[in-house]
Amino acid sequence: MIFEEPLKLDCGRTLSPFTLAYATYGRLNPARSNAILVCHALSGDQFVTGTNPMTGRPGWWETMVGPDKPIDTNRFFVIGINVPGGCMGSTGPASPDPATKKPYALSFPLLTVADMVRAQAGLLEALGIEKLLCVTGGSMGGMQALEWAARFPQRVVSAMPIATAARHTAQNIALHEIGRQAIMADPDWMGGEYLLHNRFPARGLSVARMVGHVSYLSERALERKFGRRLQDREKLSFGFGKDFQVESYLAHQGSIFVERFDANSYLYITRAMDYFDLATEFGKPLAEIFRGTKTKFQCLSFTSDWLFPTAENRLIADALAAAGAQVSFREIESDKGHDAFLLEEPELFQTVREFLGRAAAGLC
Amino acid sequence: MIFEEPLKLDCGRTLSPFTLAYATYGRLNPARSNAILVCHALSGDQFVTGTNPMTGRPGWWETMVGPDKPIDTNRFFVIGINVPGGCMGSTGPASPDPATKKPYALSFPLLTVADMVRAQAGLLEALGIEKLLCVTGGSMGGMQALEWAARFPQRVVSAMPIATAARHTAQNIALHEIGRQAIMADPDWMGGEYLLHNRFPARGLSVARMVGHVSYLSERALERKFGRRLQDREKLSFGFGKDFQVESYLAHQGSIFVERFDANSYLYITRAMDYFDLATEFGKPLAEIFRGTKTKFQCLSFTSDWLFPTAENRLIADALAAAGAQVSFREIESDKGHDAFLLEEPELFQTVREFLGRAAAGLC
Repeated sequence: MIFEEPLKLDCGRTLSPFTLAYATYGRLNPARSNAILVCHALSGDQFVTGTNPMTGRPGWWETMVGPDKPIDTNRFFVIGINVPGGCMGSTGPASPDPATKKPYALSFPLLTVADMVRAQAGLLEALGIEKLLCVTGGSMGGMQALEWAARFPQRVVSAMPIATAARHTAQNIALHEIGRQAIMADPDWMGGEYLLHNRFPARGLSVARMVGHVSYLSERALERKFGRRLQDREKLSFGFGKDFQVESYLAHQGSIFVERFDANSYLYITRAMDYFDLATEFGKPLAEIFRGTKTKFQCLSFTSDWLFPTAENRLIADALAAAGAQVSFREIESDKGHDAFLLEEPELFQTVREFLGRAAAGLC
Repeated sequence: MIFEEPLKLDCGRTLSPFTLAYATYGRLNPARSNAILVCHALSGDQFVTGTNPMTGRPGWWETMVGPDKPIDTNRFFVIGINVPGGCMGSTGPASPDPATKKPYALSFPLLTVADMVRAQAGLLEALGIEKLLCVTGGSMGGMQALEWAARFPQRVVSAMPIATAARHTAQNIALHEIGRQAIMADPDWMGGEYLLHNRFPARGLSVARMVGHVSYLSERALERKFGRRLQDREKLSFGFGKDFQVESYLAHQGSIFVERFDANSYLYITRAMDYFDLATEFGKPLAEIFRGTKTKFQCLSFTSDWLFPTAENRLIADALAAAGAQVSFREIESDKGHDAFLLEEPELFQTVREFLGRAAAGLC
């Protein structure tokens, strides 16, 4: 959907015109009361389930969303929106700047999570959806869910922030910064102007993605999946090839990522996450932001997630409880690390299914 | 010290001639029974304490080693040796290949931790030191301490492996591989031949070092040291500069590292660590390797070290106990992560002091 109305951004600039690419699953009921907004994480997009038409692979949350799945598209109308700054159809740094007709590159304004949510709110208005039955997502998706609940409480019946934080920690900023430095160190990045020169910083973006993947898994998950097993060989090579399966896995993840993701989008979206700090944004403690909210919350974390650990998620739940909100918190036992929110996790599925059932019944 | 006798390597090649750079502190007693070998970690060197003459900065373990310190140079004769493959004087990939007169670069043979220890054993023989009162070190230094105790039990009275593992885990291989990929992706690396072309892959090596630094600290340490504090500014820049102190810290660590460390040495030494797996090397379970050993062990770990976690160190201690060895294990409460072994940690200091006191008294 193309918006002509300028989007006012936290950085003081505006974006106009801009496009938001979205996908929907299931049917909006006549009362327009069954809409669930599923917000994506750093590398996600609007294609929540089914087949992603851009990549030909399953949607990023197809374990969770679909007919008879925990987010049941027989019952609910699910909306996925590519964040502005992204690269799957929404306006981002790879899009042409109307003023110059050239790709924005680094002249694209830096967006915040709040900017993303304001843009999404405009899209939902255009779709005639005044209230969301639920807004949910993991990681950066959870940040958006929190931002929605903080910014538009009257439009959010329930919110389910998963494996996330109300502020990006120093460790996570550091990991993002490493990825950005890897991209910007790649000479094919060319100060961000690679598209103009028909080049692409694939090596840098691949290294950035590898850093991501190590942080998405737990030590135990890496040990179980790969351990010290060798890749297609019986002996060490005494060289710098892919001796170990875990090296081959990282190389594969890096190489498939650079085919589908824009390097500058990686810079912009990681930065949006780094900047996320709800208390600073609203100028008051977390509990005060949510004081008096009617939104019902389900917070979720995973025991082995060291990127968005239980402690960060518990901070959110505690603040919501202190604000007098109706909130439930669940830490799920899993050794799969941050990635757990994307995987088959029966306890996660059950919690989501039950929470949405209560939300739909007006109970929570 | 220059060795003409070829060093036979695990990879099947030999290294000849080769130099081992070393430094000593304190005095060897007439009985030659007070020597302690301090083995360095990935980025360390022979300059254990005092001022490092190559960098002008304090030795890497000057908190631990020196007069009246836990490893007391008034009592003990401390030896530090730069590992072969290193870049502080020992023969490594930056050294000239006698056959070509050009830097070895990637034609340098890949060394293992066992190769390092064999080379060290030759140096100690040349110094007339038949027995080590203790061999110690953290991280890769701890791997060497284990290798010493496994390979030359009769020459090691006591061993103190700290914050280490008997095999490098999948997670740690992955982190190393990211660093190597960052280096090799830098066009100034030039297939390893950068010295010939008077270039240096500083950007890649800097990214590799940043990955290291994040892994050396705990989340809590990063939070305490930096949190979300801004660097020399009051507001976010809405750009990709160093807004956050943690970003500035990483950039600083990267930039000082590239001044003192060789990029190819980084490749070789990380690979040696990745290859380390004592059980596979000896072809039997850990406990069997140490069966009947007379060496006394003190194993140490830190609660917040996620790179070489307590579980990996406890595996060592358990295997030693199963082997019938005299072993003590201590997990030290610290929120400083892997770096804790290099820092002021009173409980670490006390444990080291007491263990060495007992070792020197023949008690352990």
